[in-house]
Amino acid sequence: MAKEACELCMHPGGEVIYRDDNYRIVLVDDERYPGFCRVIWNAHAAEMTDLSTAERAILIAAVWQVEEAIRETMQPHKINVASLGNVVPHLHWHVIPRYENDAHFPNPIWGEVKRTPNSSELAKRKAMVARLREALQDRFEESLL
Amino acid sequence: MAKEACELCMHPGGEVIYRDDNYRIVLVDDERYPGFCRVIWNAHAAEMTDLSTAERAILIAAVWQVEEAIRETMQPHKINVASLGNVVPHLHWHVIPRYENDAHFPNPIWGEVKRTPNSSELAKRKAMVARLREALQDRFEESLL
Repeated sequence: MAKEACELCMHPGGEVIYRDDNYRIVLVDDERYPGFCRVIWNAHAAEMTDLSTAERAILIAAVWQVEEAIRETMQPHKINVASLGNVVPHLHWHVIPRYENDAHFPNPIWGEVKRTPNSSELAKRKAMVARLREALQDRFEESLL
Repeated sequence: MAKEACELCMHPGGEVIYRDDNYRIVLVDDERYPGFCRVIWNAHAAEMTDLSTAERAILIAAVWQVEEAIRETMQPHKINVASLGNVVPHLHWHVIPRYENDAHFPNPIWGEVKRTPNSSELAKRKAMVARLREALQDRFEESLL
C-alpha cells in the first residue's frame, strides 16, 4: 500500500494525546467506548515483526502505559488489547476499557451487539475521560523530561 | 475468579506445542483458521499489567516468535494479535493468520462472517500446519538448550 493511500499515514486517527518520533497516542471517538485509545506507530509498517526488536519494545511499552492509565482512571472490568489492521494495515494497537454492561460484553467490540448501554453509566465513563487524558499526558510527557 | 473455575487453569486450551515454567503455546482447533495459535500464561493473571515488567517481556517475546513462525510457514496476508479475555479472564494471546479470502476478512474473526472459505484453499492451509508445528518446536525448543 502506498503511503498516500494509507489513512494512518495521512491522518492522526483520533484526538492526539501524545506524539513523539516513534508513535502517537490517540483517543478514539466512539460513543459506546469512552476511554478507547490507540497507540499508532508513526512509520508505515504492517506487523509488529516488521519492526526491529528495539522498536517493538518501545511500542509495546507504550501500550502497557496506556493500559495502566486506563485501569487507574476508568476502572474497567477488563482490558482488551489488539493489533489487527485488516482494513488499515498500518501498525496500531487498540486498548479498550471493557465493562460487563457495555454494548458488546463479553463479546469483542467487533462482535455481535449484546445490549444498549445504560446512558447514565455511559455518561459517568465519559466524565472519566478527562482524568484519563491527564493521566496519559503525565505519564508520557514525563518521559520527555 | 477461583482457579478451579478457570478453564485455562484447568485445561491446556489446545494442542500444546511448547510449554515452559512461564507459558505454553497451543494450536487452536478452529476449522476455518488453520495455524491459529494461542500463547497462554500459565499462572492465573487477567491483564498484561498484572505481570511484572520482566514477565511481560517474556510473554510478549513469545508472541512475536509465534507471529514470525506463522508468517514464515503460513504466508498469511495479515497477522491479527489480541489479548481479550472477556469470557476467560486468564491471560492468553491470540495469534491468527488472516487471508483476504478467509471466513471473516477484513472483519476480525469475532465479527460478521463474510463468506464460506474455498475448501481447496483451506485444505492447503491445513497442510501447512505441519510446517508451522515444526517451526514452533525448532524456535522454542532451541531456546531451552
